[in-house]
Order: sequence, then structure tokens, then C-alpha cells
Amino acid sequence: MWQSKDVYYVSDSTGILITNIGQAVLCQFPEISFQEERFPFVRTVPEAQKVLKKILKQSAGRKPIIFSTIVNPEVREILRSSEVEYFDPLESLLLSLEDCLETKALRVPGFSHHINDVMMNKRVEAIHFCLEHDDGQKVSEYNDAEIIILGVSRAGKTPVSVYLATQMGFKTANFPLTSEYLHEYRLPKGITENIKNTVGLTPSPEFLHSVREKRYAGSNYAKMGTCRQEVQEAKQIFMKYKIPVIQSTGKSIEEIATQISQELKLTRI
Amino acid sequence: MWQSKDVYYVSDSTGILITNIGQAVLCQFPEISFQEERFPFVRTVPEAQKVLKKILKQSAGRKPIIFSTIVNPEVREILRSSEVEYFDPLESLLLSLEDCLETKALRVPGFSHHINDVMMNKRVEAIHFCLEHDDGQKVSEYNDAEIIILGVSRAGKTPVSVYLATQMGFKTANFPLTSEYLHEYRLPKGITENIKNTVGLTPSPEFLHSVREKRYAGSNYAKMGTCRQEVQEAKQIFMKYKIPVIQSTGKSIEEIATQISQELKLTRI
Repeated sequence: MWQSKDVYYVSDSTGILITNIGQAVLCQFPEISFQEERFPFVRTVPEAQKVLKKILKQSAGRKPIIFSTIVNPEVREILRSSEVEYFDPLESLLLSLEDCLETKALRVPGFSHHINDVMMNKRVEAIHFCLEHDDGQKVSEYNDAEIIILGVSRAGKTPVSVYLATQMGFKTANFPLTSEYLHEYRLPKGITENIKNTVGLTPSPEFLHSVREKRYAGSNYAKMGTCRQEVQEAKQIFMKYKIPVIQSTGKSIEEIATQISQELKLTRI
Repeated sequence: MWQSKDVYYVSDSTGILITNIGQAVLCQFPEISFQEERFPFVRTVPEAQKVLKKILKQSAGRKPIIFSTIVNPEVREILRSSEVEYFDPLESLLLSLEDCLETKALRVPGFSHHINDVMMNKRVEAIHFCLEHDDGQKVSEYNDAEIIILGVSRAGKTPVSVYLATQMGFKTANFPLTSEYLHEYRLPKGITENIKNTVGLTPSPEFLHSVREKRYAGSNYAKMGTCRQEVQEAKQIFMKYKIPVIQSTGKSIEEIATQISQELKLTRI
């Protein structure tokens, strides 16, 4: 077994997809330490030669791994040097798909990100909407929201909202359940009118306590008792309005966002 | 050749990675129309049976494609039905890597997103930082920014900033070059002191004009002449302070973000 390996992600586009693929498989080898670097936008033979030279110099004698999705055969041949371990996971997938679909693939570069103007505009709009409707702003415009996330302060609403907008293109608003709502078990009209697009996010009281302590140590706001009570009151509001609840503790932004899209039946792409 | 195909992304985790992989290869077959749906968090044999039943019902007689990354062999066997075309691109990659690394992969589910607490906290912090430093807010705190993006109004600063924070975990601020800065060719101290972390984003005047027209049709702000002048003045500021310039027109959020990380030498992962 190797103790460590140098890993390079080389792409004719951003390299984001091949990096994600590489990291997903490398994390299945936790005993090995990987040094990773990305080389995006490698499109010509001279560029590839320069990158290969740099890689071989940096990893002299250690036979580095290259993960690549380069489509141009001449550029690819440069990088497929005998001095590296070369992996191109999308090429074999393309070959099988050509069989299955009974036609040839285009094989144009920019694999991971062909610009889709419609989706790109939707994402840009969603991001602006998300920032303008963060933390309870402009509740009167909630009719335009595709997703509304409720939760107490520091439940993790903002990162998840931003992810849903940025990656999935959903206009997402988030609303903080402050004491005036918690104590009276009520919600503003902008939300009750759009309850079918609404989800509740709830951390465990212990997790909420630890997060708030980091920000305002020793405060009443951060106390375990306060956290426990707020989480409890929020749950009762969610129950009263039949709002689906997502437990956020110990989950990644991606996991929470995916669960929200499932709850609101937004999994068609 | 098939005219259309039903495509399902089935995952024991979020399914985000396998969806991205699938879409990257399917876009190489532009003549075929694909109906796509994602089934995340499929972890048990009964769940897989339920999903398969739903898929076969929806796609009766059309032999659907399943892209999957399911690790558990029993769950996988359910989905690998003879009635579907089953693709698992990460499994063959894992097998090759096991050879190359001379050790066995763990094969624990949650392939695409093992929770890495350190990185997750960095991203959450970066997102909050980004929202608090959007559009020129809190310039006095720019010493804490890892990336500062400059540009005229509607150059695309906010979506790119949000992406850099959400996906790459960089604390990103953005600052609008309004007329007071453009006319005097100057920048505030918060930026000049952190010029090594600063990039300029510039659209073409034509693109800027079309974006602004959508928002404020017929306004002086949206006029072609105004756009041309502002873009020109912004470029002169970038030149004066030796700020790397990124042309944004026709590029995706991912492409611009990747170019910024390249310019600022942030490509080590």
C-alpha cells in the first residue's frame, strides 16, 4: 500500500466534475494521504505539455495519479504518459452509453459544464432572490418563492438556502422563528399562504447550544435551556401548520438540500 | 437511435454526484431527449424494491437508464434488473484504483459526500461572510476576505461570490464600482490594502446593456453609451492597480469561479 499519492485533476473545462469524482473515490482510501491540485482549461497540446512537465517535476519519482476528462485525443495523448497513472472515468461510460443509445457521442470539450443559458439565468435569478429574501426579508414577496425554510436562529437556514439557489436554481427564502412567533405559535401571512412550499429546519438542542456558544458565549441566547425551549416551540409550530421537518444536526448542506427537494417533490430535473 | 430515454439517478446518499456525472455524458447526445429524475437516500432492500417498481411503472416498456453509485451489494442487485440499463461509473474506477494504490477501498455508502466537518464549517462561515460582504458592505473587514471581486453594477459579481463561498469555501466579498470610484479612478483602502486577493470582473458592454435593459428598460443606467463608458473606466482602474481581469460574458458561474481561483493561485485543494 502507498502511504501518500500526488493527485492531479486535469480538465479542458473547469475540472469541477472530475475533482468531485476523484474525491468521491479517494475518500474510500482513508489510510492514504493525497496531495491534490487542479489544472483547469487545458485545451491545447502546448498547454498539456506544460502541465505534464510541472506535474512530473513536482512529483518526481512518485508516479502521480492524473484524473482527466480531456476529450481532444492529441491533448489526451500528451497526458497519458507512462510516467503517470491516468484515469478517464467518463470515456468508458461514454462508450457504454453509445452502445445503449445506438448513436455516437459528440465528444465536444466542456464536458462538465456545457453552458445552458436557461438554467444559468434561473440560477442567477435564484441567487439574487435568495440574498434579497435571507433572514426574513421581504416576506410580502414569498408568493414568488419556490422554497421557504423556517427555523430558529442558527438552525442552518442560510447556507442551505444559498445552496438550493446556487446549485439547484430554486428561488429560496428563509425566515427566522424569533420569540414573537415562537411564543404565539403563529406565522406571518406570507408563509401561511405558501405553506405547501415551506419546510422546517431543526437542529438538536445540543448542537444549537454549541453553535450559539461559539458566537455569544455565556449569553442567555446560547443557554442550553433557551435552545431546548426554542427547538420545542418551533416543532410545535411545524406540527400546527403540518410543515415537514428536517433534522439538520450531523448532516451536510447537500444532504439537507436534497431532503428538502424530496419533501417538496422537486426531484424531477 | 433512440428519440428519448427515461433516466434515473439512484443513490444511497444525495445523488448529486451521480446526477452531475450522468448529465455531463448525456449532454454529449443532444439529439436524444432525456426525462430525468433523482431518487436519493436509497439504502435498504425494501427501499430499492419500491424505487425499482416506481421506475418500471413510469417507464413501462421503454427500458430506462439507471445511473447509480449504490455500494451495498444486496441493494445494488435489486436495481441491476434486466429490465433496465444499469450504469455504475464509480465501481470500475474503484477497482482500477485498488490496483494502482495496492490496497482495498472501504466501500462505505455516502460516496459523493462523506461529511468533512472542517470543510463544512469553512463553507458555512464563507457563506455567512459572503452575504455580509455582498455589494460593498463592510469594506473595513476586507482583511478577512480570501477573494475580493470588483465590477460595475450587474457584472455578475454576486452569483460568482456565492458560488466561491458555497462550493469552494472561500470567504468572498464583492464591491460595486459605482460612479464615484469610476470617475476618480480610485478604490477604497479596504481594497488597495488587499489588492493581491482582488480580481476584476467585466462583461462586454453589449451584454451589460442587455442585462440592465431587462431590469430598468429605457433608463440612462441601461443605455449602451453608459455601459460602454463604465466598462472602459473599470478596465482603467484594473490596469492602474494591476488587478487581473476576467471577462464574464458567455461564461458559466463555474467557469468564472474557476478562473478566479486560478488567477489567485487557489487551485490546490
